[in-house]
Amino acid sequence: MATPAAVEAEIHAIMQDRIEAVQAKDAQRLVSHHSADVVAYDLLEPLQYKGAADLRQRAQQWFDGYDGPMTYEIRDLVVVPGHGVAFCHGLHHVAGRLRTGQQVDMWWRATQGLRLVGDKWQIVHEHSSLPFDMATGKVSFALKP
Amino acid sequence: MATPAAVEAEIHAIMQDRIEAVQAKDAQRLVSHHSADVVAYDLLEPLQYKGAADLRQRAQQWFDGYDGPMTYEIRDLVVVPGHGVAFCHGLHHVAGRLRTGQQVDMWWRATQGLRLVGDKWQIVHEHSSLPFDMATGKVSFALKP
Repeated sequence: MATPAAVEAEIHAIMQDRIEAVQAKDAQRLVSHHSADVVAYDLLEPLQYKGAADLRQRAQQWFDGYDGPMTYEIRDLVVVPGHGVAFCHGLHHVAGRLRTGQQVDMWWRATQGLRLVGDKWQIVHEHSSLPFDMATGKVSFALKP
Repeated sequence: MATPAAVEAEIHAIMQDRIEAVQAKDAQRLVSHHSADVVAYDLLEPLQYKGAADLRQRAQQWFDGYDGPMTYEIRDLVVVPGHGVAFCHGLHHVAGRLRTGQQVDMWWRATQGLRLVGDKWQIVHEHSSLPFDMATGKVSFALKP
């Protein structure tokens, strides 16, 4: 059985690959770590997405919205490794220019729940969000860690 | 070592106790399942809360905002039990009347990451959120599962 440190390293590698997948705008690579039946709570409506196919389509839309390169990083990544089950959470940052001309430079929160399937860790649950302001009902794209 | 079914039952019991803590407006009971160093991503700003004391204060504010009873339920709860580490996610619903007179009847998404500490499961990470609409930057309080 893998040690906690080995599991932690594997999950760090998955998250590193995610960064590279976004920078390459490669939706297939991005969802290659997700299980077919992943339940995802995304930044955007609806309340939940079910299945890697929907998630891949959503990622493709995300990438297509950007004109040129996307920079992507993850900060404060905490991995909690277990035997067969693990999760991680951290602050994600994207910057780039949308096709509309708008500059994006935003941070959000993301949590991944993983299961060991055979010898491969798979993301079976993902939760990405921005907090909102109660007075306006609006999220802020300008929050910094 | 506890079976997956036993772990799942324990975590269901923790979430059931959470429901009862909200209905009793008991902030101390609500955070009694959290570790002292919990990292929480809340519905409201800021990006993250650190520590059960902050979380308790936030829960107290939440309860104090309501005039009279709060109804609370959790739907589609999925528990992923492991040895020593587990997580769960589901759709949470609160209804009641704020002190401002406003009626609240909202659903949101929540994820909990847990660790077994001694013989007690503790929530070490929590993520609660509403998705937003890209066109307006606003969250919707009217989403239904």
